Amino acid sequence: MFIAQVITLYPEMFPGPLGHSIAGRALREGRWRCDAIQMRDFATDRHRSVDDTPAGGGAGMVLRADVVARAVDHAAAAAPDLPVLALTPRGRPLSQARVRALAAGPGATLLCGRFEGFDQRLFEARAIEEVSIGDYILSGGEMGALVLLDACVRLLPGVMGAASSGDEESFESGLLEYPHYTRPAEWEGRTIPEVLRSGDHARIAAWRTSMAETDTRLRRPDLWERHEDARVPRPLARGDE
Amino acid sequence: MFIAQVITLYPEMFPGPLGHSIAGRALREGRWRCDAIQMRDFATDRHRSVDDTPAGGGAGMVLRADVVARAVDHAAAAAPDLPVLALTPRGRPLSQARVRALAAGPGATLLCGRFEGFDQRLFEARAIEEVSIGDYILSGGEMGALVLLDACVRLLPGVMGAASSGDEESFESGLLEYPHYTRPAEWEGRTIPEVLRSGDHARIAAWRTSMAETDTRLRRPDLWERHEDARVPRPLARGDE
Repeated sequence: MFIAQVITLYPEMFPGPLGHSIAGRALREGRWRCDAIQMRDFATDRHRSVDDTPAGGGAGMVLRADVVARAVDHAAAAAPDLPVLALTPRGRPLSQARVRALAAGPGATLLCGRFEGFDQRLFEARAIEEVSIGDYILSGGEMGALVLLDACVRLLPGVMGAASSGDEESFESGLLEYPHYTRPAEWEGRTIPEVLRSGDHARIAAWRTSMAETDTRLRRPDLWERHEDARVPRPLARGDE
Repeated sequence: MFIAQVITLYPEMFPGPLGHSIAGRALREGRWRCDAIQMRDFATDRHRSVDDTPAGGGAGMVLRADVVARAVDHAAAAAPDLPVLALTPRGRPLSQARVRALAAGPGATLLCGRFEGFDQRLFEARAIEEVSIGDYILSGGEMGALVLLDACVRLLPGVMGAASSGDEESFESGLLEYPHYTRPAEWEGRTIPEVLRSGDHARIAAWRTSMAETDTRLRRPDLWERHEDARVPRPLARGDE
């Protein structure tokens, strides 16, 4: 069973939306588990403080390394095999490859920041992978944890079933997915591309590959560049740029 | 008031985690509204079908253009001023600049995909902005809608208060944010960098800028490149590379 431990100031957010739809069914079927851990339980003063003002001044509050480390150590003792990931905008961008690797493993302990973030010493003193779900600012790491878990859970054995292979989806091949069409054949004067109604499987596959490439090049030149870099072997000649 | 309309097959997921913490308080204070619209209500057959098999074959199901367009038209009639955004991995990556622009506007109608996605004709026939929250695959657009709304709501007037200016956060300047520290001054033998305890505001500001630049260069060469491109004016000489 895939085990998710979530260290958060808002345990009531979990499983939240992951209690519905595909992830919710998988939860009820025992394919994964979601244990929320209240970070505040690891404070030691009578106000149960988890944060303090930033050293050097500035707005907001910073999560204390000592309190958070106690929560992380508690989670690590409960499930020693799980990698610990902190959701933070300073982290490495989450990729489908990382999601796939996590889903193939025993689970994850997810650490959700709030306010201005964590005391940096936490990341020097503990093996914690900093992960970002995108280049925008959220009110806390909880949304990131929900996103990461949703992405993982759908890949667990038996969750998606045979309905979706996953192989042709966006990012699995380093490309965006080709566009889809379904009935009705004509809608508001717009028809489904002829090739898709041809029954010619080779032509359909070629059209889809070509569309995935074109759309990636136009919409995501950054992805396209990485795709091409990975495909074209670098020449071995010295001095080439 | 910021109006969020969410077209989804899982209206029970909303406001979900956005009913807690900062976004939840803002919701109760009437600073934003979250109206979930059940996509299935716009089906016309007695099975209330919203999807059908992909034209040209393949795994999964595709959301029908006619059914979804009716839901979008209904939402547009209810709130004609709102931009319509579809959460899809084929969309433009969500940026903090787009979040800020949306938060400054009247709200957004968010269209959540499921299965293999939408019939492409939908995007040809309606003014819908395709947005992606990251390069990974989710079970549906609902998580993306939650993320997008969380990012917007925290920027609404009165929501964050004076506690967090927002200006120094990651991505606002095109850089990652500098690292934070707080009490205790020493923890597990690790101290807060001396400069932050110096009281010298100019030195502290210079250190933070330098750390933000170093961390961005090391952790996110892609962001750093864009930041440098925007900063350094291109020379006008002909023929330069």
